[in-house]
Amino acid sequence: MYSVKKNIDIIIKNGIVVTVDDKNTIIKNGAVAIKNSKIIDVDTNQQVLNKYFSKKIIDAKGKIVMPGFVNAHTHLAMTIFRGMVDDTVLSDWLYKYIFPAEQKWINPQTVKTGTELSMLEMVHSGTTCFNDMYYYQDVTAEVAKNVGMRGIINEGLIDFPVANSKNPQQGLDYSKMLLKKYENDDLISVGLGAHSCFSCSEDLLKDAHKLAVDNNTIFHIHVAESEWELKTTIKKIGLTPVQYLNKLGVLTQNSVFAHGVWLNDIDISLLAEKNVGIVHNPECNMKISSGIAPIPKLLDKGVKVGLGTDGVASNNNLSMIQELHTMALLHKVNSMNPTVIPAEQAVRIATMGSAKVLGKDKEIGSIEIGKNADIIIIDTQNAHTTPIYNVYSIIAYSLYGNEVTDVIINGKEIMRDNKILTIDESKVINDAKIVSEKIENDIL
Amino acid sequence: MYSVKKNIDIIIKNGIVVTVDDKNTIIKNGAVAIKNSKIIDVDTNQQVLNKYFSKKIIDAKGKIVMPGFVNAHTHLAMTIFRGMVDDTVLSDWLYKYIFPAEQKWINPQTVKTGTELSMLEMVHSGTTCFNDMYYYQDVTAEVAKNVGMRGIINEGLIDFPVANSKNPQQGLDYSKMLLKKYENDDLISVGLGAHSCFSCSEDLLKDAHKLAVDNNTIFHIHVAESEWELKTTIKKIGLTPVQYLNKLGVLTQNSVFAHGVWLNDIDISLLAEKNVGIVHNPECNMKISSGIAPIPKLLDKGVKVGLGTDGVASNNNLSMIQELHTMALLHKVNSMNPTVIPAEQAVRIATMGSAKVLGKDKEIGSIEIGKNADIIIIDTQNAHTTPIYNVYSIIAYSLYGNEVTDVIINGKEIMRDNKILTIDESKVINDAKIVSEKIENDIL
Repeated sequence: MYSVKKNIDIIIKNGIVVTVDDKNTIIKNGAVAIKNSKIIDVDTNQQVLNKYFSKKIIDAKGKIVMPGFVNAHTHLAMTIFRGMVDDTVLSDWLYKYIFPAEQKWINPQTVKTGTELSMLEMVHSGTTCFNDMYYYQDVTAEVAKNVGMRGIINEGLIDFPVANSKNPQQGLDYSKMLLKKYENDDLISVGLGAHSCFSCSEDLLKDAHKLAVDNNTIFHIHVAESEWELKTTIKKIGLTPVQYLNKLGVLTQNSVFAHGVWLNDIDISLLAEKNVGIVHNPECNMKISSGIAPIPKLLDKGVKVGLGTDGVASNNNLSMIQELHTMALLHKVNSMNPTVIPAEQAVRIATMGSAKVLGKDKEIGSIEIGKNADIIIIDTQNAHTTPIYNVYSIIAYSLYGNEVTDVIINGKEIMRDNKILTIDESKVINDAKIVSEKIENDIL
Repeated sequence: MYSVKKNIDIIIKNGIVVTVDDKNTIIKNGAVAIKNSKIIDVDTNQQVLNKYFSKKIIDAKGKIVMPGFVNAHTHLAMTIFRGMVDDTVLSDWLYKYIFPAEQKWINPQTVKTGTELSMLEMVHSGTTCFNDMYYYQDVTAEVAKNVGMRGIINEGLIDFPVANSKNPQQGLDYSKMLLKKYENDDLISVGLGAHSCFSCSEDLLKDAHKLAVDNNTIFHIHVAESEWELKTTIKKIGLTPVQYLNKLGVLTQNSVFAHGVWLNDIDISLLAEKNVGIVHNPECNMKISSGIAPIPKLLDKGVKVGLGTDGVASNNNLSMIQELHTMALLHKVNSMNPTVIPAEQAVRIATMGSAKVLGKDKEIGSIEIGKNADIIIIDTQNAHTTPIYNVYSIIAYSLYGNEVTDVIINGKEIMRDNKILTIDESKVINDAKIVSEKIENDIL
C-alpha cells in the first residue's frame, strides 16, 4: 500500500509559519503548498510533505514564513526624488521643490525608472502588493507586471493640468482606459485616484467615486492629512473633509482615505458607519509634522485600518517593516499606554488590515487555503533576530527591514536568496543614478 | 625626482567621507589614513594616495565612510531577554518578568552570552563604542576586548542585593577593582553606574559620584525616566529628580543622565549650567510609554545630548541607525515642526553628541586627524539608498540598519565585507539560542 502524492508548483517547508488568519495561528514547524498561483494547503511540515511533492521545494528552516506586506498608499515614481528635499515646511517642500521638479521631470521614462527602483525596494523589504496614486499609471502597471508585483494603480485626478492630463476629464478618460485594459489582469487592479477634497471639484469627486462603484473598485483619496486642510475645508464649506465627502455621497466601502490625521468623533463615526478604510502613514506624518492619526480610536470604533509608506520623497523609504515598527511605538507613547497596538496587531494591520482597506481580503493578506500565494520568507539567523521568544515581537520590534530572503507573488518566485529574478537590479539602480544626476544639476 | 610615501596601517579610499567635524565637512571622493590606532589624515583621495601607501587598502567606492555610532546607554547582557515580554505596563514588565528572570538567570555565563550577542549586533549596525550599565561588568569588558569593541563599563549600584553584590559597598568595591584593572586599557573605560535616585541612598549616590570625579570618569544614572519617578521623588523629597541630585552635589560635567524625559525648565537650566549630559532613548521611551524627552529644548539651552538604545529587553534592538531615524521623526511631529532635528543634527547626536556626553569627544565621534580610528563603511548600492542627493538624508531617513559592511575600531579591522573577524558569529547565535530555550522553558 502506498499513498499517492499530488504534484504541485512550490512547497515551502520547515518554516515558522505566521498565517495572520483570524486566530493568529502560528505553525512552528510548518509548510505551505502552492499550485496555480494559489495556496492550496498550510499545515505542519509532516502533513504537507505527506500529501504533496514538487520539483521546487524552498527550505525555510529557522525562517519566518508570512504573508507579504500590503503597502496601501504610495507614489512609487517619486522614489526618484528620495532625499531631494527634507526638513522644510510643507509649503516650501511642495511649491519650491516638488511641484517644479514634477513639472519638469515627470514623464513616462522617469516614471518607469522611479517605479522600477521602488519595485526593487518593495520586493527586498517584503511588500507583495501596493496601492499607487500618481501619473502615467499605465507605465507603473507595466513595470509591476514585468517584475511580477501585485498592485492597484490609480491615475491622479486633480482640477489643474498635470503631467499626464490637461484637465480632469482627460484623467477620467485615462482611468477608464486603464479599467478596460486591466479588467482581467492577474496582478493589476485599477482604482480611481482623486487627489484631495481641496484640489478636486465636487463633480470630479462624484464622477470618480461613481466610476469606482460602477467598476467595483476603490476610490482612493488623501483626506484630513494636515491641519491646514481641515481649517481650509471648514472655512470654505463649513464642514470637515470627511463630513464634506459624506455630503457628496462618496463615503462607501469603496473609499480608501489616506492619512486621516485630523478627524473628530463625528468623522470617525461616519467612517465606521459607511465602512470607509483609513490608510495610516505614520512616518510621513511624523516627518512632515502633519500630526498623529487617532489609530487606536479608529480601531476601537471598528474602522478598517491599513498601513502605507506614502511616497519616498517624504518618508524616505518604502519599508513596511520600518513603518509598522514606527506605528507600534508611536501610538504607545502618544496614548501613554504600552499595551496599545501590540506586536501581533501591528503585523496584522500591515497585511490583512491593508488588504481589507483595499477590498482584497478575500484574495491576499494571510496564508490561508484558497488565497493567492503572496508570501515572504524572513531570515532570522542574525544577531538582532536572536533569540525568538515571540515571533510577532521579532517582526514588529527587532527587524531592521532587509531580512527578507524570498518573495513569492501570485505563486511565482520573484526573489530567491536575496536576488530578484525578474529584473536586472544593477541596471535599475544605475538608471536611477543617471536620472537623479540630471535632476540635481538642473534643480538643486 | 620622486616623493617618498609614508607606510601606514590602513587606507580607506574612494569613499563619501562624512567627517562630522565642526563644519560638517563631506569629502565626496575622500580617503582616510590610519596608523597606530589613530586617524593621521583625512582628505581627498588624491591627496591621501599621494602621501601614503599601505598593504591594507579598503576600497569604499560609492560607500559612505563615517565615524562609528556611539551608543551612550545600554544594558548589553539583557539582549538574552529580547522579546521575552512586550506590550505590558512597566510594573508588570519589571516585577512579573524581568526581575525574576534576572534573579534566576543572570550569572557570568549568561552575561557573556548576552553580551557577545550584543557585540555582534552592534558591530553589524555600525556601533563602535557603548556605555553599559549592568552586572558582572568585568565579563562585559572581556567580551568587548575579545571582539575589539570600545566601551565604558558601569557596574550597577543599587541599595538592594543584586546578581553581583550583596550590598552597595560590594558594588563600589567591585567598581574600584574595575577602575584599577582597566586604568590604562586601550578600549575599556570604567564609569560609576548608580541605578537611579529612587533605588540608591543619598550616600551611595554621593560616594559613586565622588569616585567618578576622583577618577575623572562618568557618573552614569537613570534620571526622570517616568512620570512615576518624578511624582515619587517630589512626594518623598519635595524636589524633582534633577533638583534632588543637584542638592546632593552630583550634577557635574561627569554626570551622564539616561532618559531625562520628565524635566521642567528649572531642571533644564540646571543641566545646562552644570554641564550634565542627557542620553536620549526614544524607542524605549515610546515602547514603554514613558513619554517624549524635551530634546529640542535641551539642545536649544545648550545641554549636551547623546543617543542610546537602552536595553534590548525594552527596545528591541541595538540599532543606532533605527534609533536616530526615530529620534528625528518623533521630535518633528511632537513639536509640529518639520525643521526640528534635521538629518545632519540627528547624525551628529548619534556620534559626536554621544561622545561629548561620555567625555570622549577629544578621542572619538568624528573623522578628524588625531582621533582614534573608529570608522564604519556603509554600502549604498541598494534600491533604498538610491539616489543620493544628500548623504545625511540617506543616513537619517533611508537606511534600514544593516548596510554597514566594514567596521574599524581603534585602527583595527573588526568587520570586513559584512563578516566579523574577531568572533565566531554562528557560535554566539547558537549559544544564545540554547540559553534562551532554557529561560523560556523555565519562565514563560
